[in-house]
Amino acid sequence: MLKIDGIAASAGVAIAPVFKLSHPDFTVKRQKAEDPAAELNRLEDALAKSRQELEAIKDRTLRELGEKKAEIFESHLLILNDPELLTPVRDKISAEIVTAEYALDEVSKQFVSMFENMKSAYLQERAADMRDVTKRVLTHLLGLSYVSPAEISEKVIVVAEDLTPSDTAQLNRNYVKGFTTNIGGRTSHSAIMARSLEIPAVVGTKDVLARVNSGDMLIVDGLDGAVIVNPTPETLREYEAKRDNHLRQIAEWKKLRELPTVSKDGVHVELAANIGTPNDVAGVLENGGEGVGLYRTEFLYMGRSELPSEEVQFNAYKTVLEKMEGKPVVVRTLDIGGDKELPYLDLPKEMNPFLGFRAVRLCLERTDIFRTQLRALLRASTFGNLRIMFPMIATLDEFRQAKALLTEEKEKLTAEGVKVSDSIQLGIMVEIPSTAVLADHFAKEVDFFSIGTNDLIQYTMAADRMNERVSYLYQPYNPAILRLVKMVIDAAHKEGRWAGMCGEMAGDATAIPLLLGLGLDEFSMSATSILPARSQISRLSKAEMKELAEQALQMQTAEEVVELVRGIGQ
Amino acid sequence: MLKIDGIAASAGVAIAPVFKLSHPDFTVKRQKAEDPAAELNRLEDALAKSRQELEAIKDRTLRELGEKKAEIFESHLLILNDPELLTPVRDKISAEIVTAEYALDEVSKQFVSMFENMKSAYLQERAADMRDVTKRVLTHLLGLSYVSPAEISEKVIVVAEDLTPSDTAQLNRNYVKGFTTNIGGRTSHSAIMARSLEIPAVVGTKDVLARVNSGDMLIVDGLDGAVIVNPTPETLREYEAKRDNHLRQIAEWKKLRELPTVSKDGVHVELAANIGTPNDVAGVLENGGEGVGLYRTEFLYMGRSELPSEEVQFNAYKTVLEKMEGKPVVVRTLDIGGDKELPYLDLPKEMNPFLGFRAVRLCLERTDIFRTQLRALLRASTFGNLRIMFPMIATLDEFRQAKALLTEEKEKLTAEGVKVSDSIQLGIMVEIPSTAVLADHFAKEVDFFSIGTNDLIQYTMAADRMNERVSYLYQPYNPAILRLVKMVIDAAHKEGRWAGMCGEMAGDATAIPLLLGLGLDEFSMSATSILPARSQISRLSKAEMKELAEQALQMQTAEEVVELVRGIGQ
Repeated sequence: MLKIDGIAASAGVAIAPVFKLSHPDFTVKRQKAEDPAAELNRLEDALAKSRQELEAIKDRTLRELGEKKAEIFESHLLILNDPELLTPVRDKISAEIVTAEYALDEVSKQFVSMFENMKSAYLQERAADMRDVTKRVLTHLLGLSYVSPAEISEKVIVVAEDLTPSDTAQLNRNYVKGFTTNIGGRTSHSAIMARSLEIPAVVGTKDVLARVNSGDMLIVDGLDGAVIVNPTPETLREYEAKRDNHLRQIAEWKKLRELPTVSKDGVHVELAANIGTPNDVAGVLENGGEGVGLYRTEFLYMGRSELPSEEVQFNAYKTVLEKMEGKPVVVRTLDIGGDKELPYLDLPKEMNPFLGFRAVRLCLERTDIFRTQLRALLRASTFGNLRIMFPMIATLDEFRQAKALLTEEKEKLTAEGVKVSDSIQLGIMVEIPSTAVLADHFAKEVDFFSIGTNDLIQYTMAADRMNERVSYLYQPYNPAILRLVKMVIDAAHKEGRWAGMCGEMAGDATAIPLLLGLGLDEFSMSATSILPARSQISRLSKAEMKELAEQALQMQTAEEVVELVRGIGQ
Repeated sequence: MLKIDGIAASAGVAIAPVFKLSHPDFTVKRQKAEDPAAELNRLEDALAKSRQELEAIKDRTLRELGEKKAEIFESHLLILNDPELLTPVRDKISAEIVTAEYALDEVSKQFVSMFENMKSAYLQERAADMRDVTKRVLTHLLGLSYVSPAEISEKVIVVAEDLTPSDTAQLNRNYVKGFTTNIGGRTSHSAIMARSLEIPAVVGTKDVLARVNSGDMLIVDGLDGAVIVNPTPETLREYEAKRDNHLRQIAEWKKLRELPTVSKDGVHVELAANIGTPNDVAGVLENGGEGVGLYRTEFLYMGRSELPSEEVQFNAYKTVLEKMEGKPVVVRTLDIGGDKELPYLDLPKEMNPFLGFRAVRLCLERTDIFRTQLRALLRASTFGNLRIMFPMIATLDEFRQAKALLTEEKEKLTAEGVKVSDSIQLGIMVEIPSTAVLADHFAKEVDFFSIGTNDLIQYTMAADRMNERVSYLYQPYNPAILRLVKMVIDAAHKEGRWAGMCGEMAGDATAIPLLLGLGLDEFSMSATSILPARSQISRLSKAEMKELAEQALQMQTAEEVVELVRGIGQ
């Protein structure tokens, strides 16, 4: 038995044999061929085999996981039959008399690099598809053995160096009971996918791949971040109990779905969900969300070649508002720039994009884009309980300018005879330190605050949250962050406004006692965190948490704060 | 007469005829030559003329401006005689039968791009030199007329699109009485050079170059940011008076050199200077600096191919301490990273370098580098009044770690029998919002604070100060900034510590009344700002400024604050 520590990336306990997912060496050297006709035959042969495989995987995926998941293999088949790819490969074999694998590899690389340079999320996915297809054909040409995640058809735990987006898209929940990787963190792509698939996962183990063999019995403990190899019968029983306990707890949480969120001493707070698309609303309702606390509208703008029309936006906003049936929906206006690019806007490269021309800064210059979004929102406002929120507000001027544009569009619509709701709340994200420090002034002009901790922390600590070398400074529990959060909540309450939070922190079990104690009114989180949070809050007394928060505000370091609140109400 | 507005970049009034410095079009197209031998002759001819010119410029510069300034032309001559450049040019002419200008341009571009890709400040300068030399030779080959700034030998005002570093290095103060450019801002390279040369300058006029002719009489008003073309006799007299008045004021300021800085109501504050090298100390003393408030040690690490040894550093620190004759010298430990790179450290590229692995973050990981600097400082400490300051401190942990390393090195030195001062004050830069917010805790452990406004503003407003698209958010007078500054000063005083400021803001005449009112103890600025600041403070009552600051702290926007303090004590 061997225990390997890692980062708990997705809750739950999985127990199954190891499936090592390793990517063989696909390096191809330039090699002259002897007989181009033979190479052309080898190519056709490998293509045929690959097509056969893909058809089989597609059919199985369609049967077991549905149409949506099968689409990726449909795209792979299209690539495999695409003369735009195959003709230059065949020409290269004939003209340069090189091996089939070299010709394929070269041509494919050109496409991949062309797609990648396009900087469009859509074309980058095409680049990933092209790479996957090329690997599949090369497997045959080079006589390698490589099993793609889609081909797994037994219950296993996948062990890998890392999982690429293409790998995770091919994971079949029915067979893959959990996974563990050498690299990655809680916010890496594979971790996020694991939580969305609700598969237990442990990432960042450094060396799990080298320390297990195919067929080893493995336990992945996604609750405490540990992997156990070949457990003793006693350990196995222990983890089976832990797994069953967790599953029972999930069932318990489900019972809270229709109940309001109330602390032990009877104080109600609102638990809302963060969503990206209208499709996410189903998950919000399933998990008992009392509203949408953050609708990230930028997804409407991404993965397309031009700006979404007013009509496209109107339909999306209307759908979300209707589906939420009168529950509040906080829509954040376009938050693009920073790490999120829109190729068709052709924005200049910046030295420090996180400190650059993004979100409301861009919208106040590109008022054409902004006005279209505001009109779509205003028109949708009569279909539910709409709240509008501006991101990245740093000064009162910016808020006033944005509000003036909204008022103008509202007046225009009214003049055109279009009905617009009169009770739209208007708020701002508090994610820039200056805005937290001046929250007393802002509170006189806005209807609500929503604290965006992801950015607020990175600016307050001057540490890029995506940069591993300074990740130790990304400290949600630093007393400076708690003091800023308190300033914002107190300022809101003094003026009779409400204060919410829509960063990662709002759904974190360690943060919840503190946030309740600081007086937060609304917690917006990923839908799957809502029921555990409701359960936790029902065990907490707000009055006691207020005392706890007072202590935390006086502490010197993040470590001391974490020590103070560890395990409270969990 | 025509008046053009711009940005006041360097104080004073200059009156002289226009000298248009324009860079002709040096574009060279690939062109087959008819007779390679003739092209080789043309090349040699152009090289000879260029050498002659350079010799003449070098001699004159040596005579008029001294050895240091003449060095750049010596490097140009070396390049002109370098077979590493010339052999491939000649080979290209013979082998490809192309024109001399094309061959030179191509080979030179290769060198320039190679140098530039090296990312070393030293090699980037070499790239600039190579470009200058190539232009000079091309001028002859293409029959262009181009006069380099070094060749100016009459009293003029230079008018240009922009001035490159190479242009400014060649400016001769004896002839160039002022300059004005289309582009640039107060912190652009040319503006900084103008202030250091004490030449009046107006930048960012957008179109001055197109609106003047060579020989036009020009007034550059670097006090109010205006350029007047062909003034009427009356306007001319008015500006001559303004110029003389300014010169008188400078003479007046000089009288304050040996006096302490005291407010109208008798409160003493300390005016110190920011320096980069031991050579800057002369300027500090000339301008009546009461100390060095910021010694930027990173210059010791830049422009070389490896880390500076302990001995090199010791000598630099000792020199500064000795020259300052017991006046306090605040040495900031290595602040590298962000926009300042050290090629030989080979640091990975970062997405957001300003939020990245820099300054003390790097030093706490590369303790070898840090310990060497701390040892050099400790050894130098007995030669004057040394204060050590750590940059980019975000958490108490970081300060404690840095202090522990200093203590260890001190103990080692003492054990080795080396004398170390026992009265070294130990402080931190406050330039990260979290540190300002937790200043009460920090004040219990440090001897002093120095507020670094350049960074503090950019993090608090989440706006890269180098990024023009968000420069409107770089607001020193935003009330949020003033509130943070107040938190820091109050926290220091509560624990009996002192608080200084070493960002641009400390020397700004608009900021000084507020900072005095907020209780700042030490103002560190560029040496040339010290005497005007001393003069201004002598006209201000600290008690009155305290009331003014209280008002400013309650304002909503930066504009309101600027309006409140405009012109006070100036």
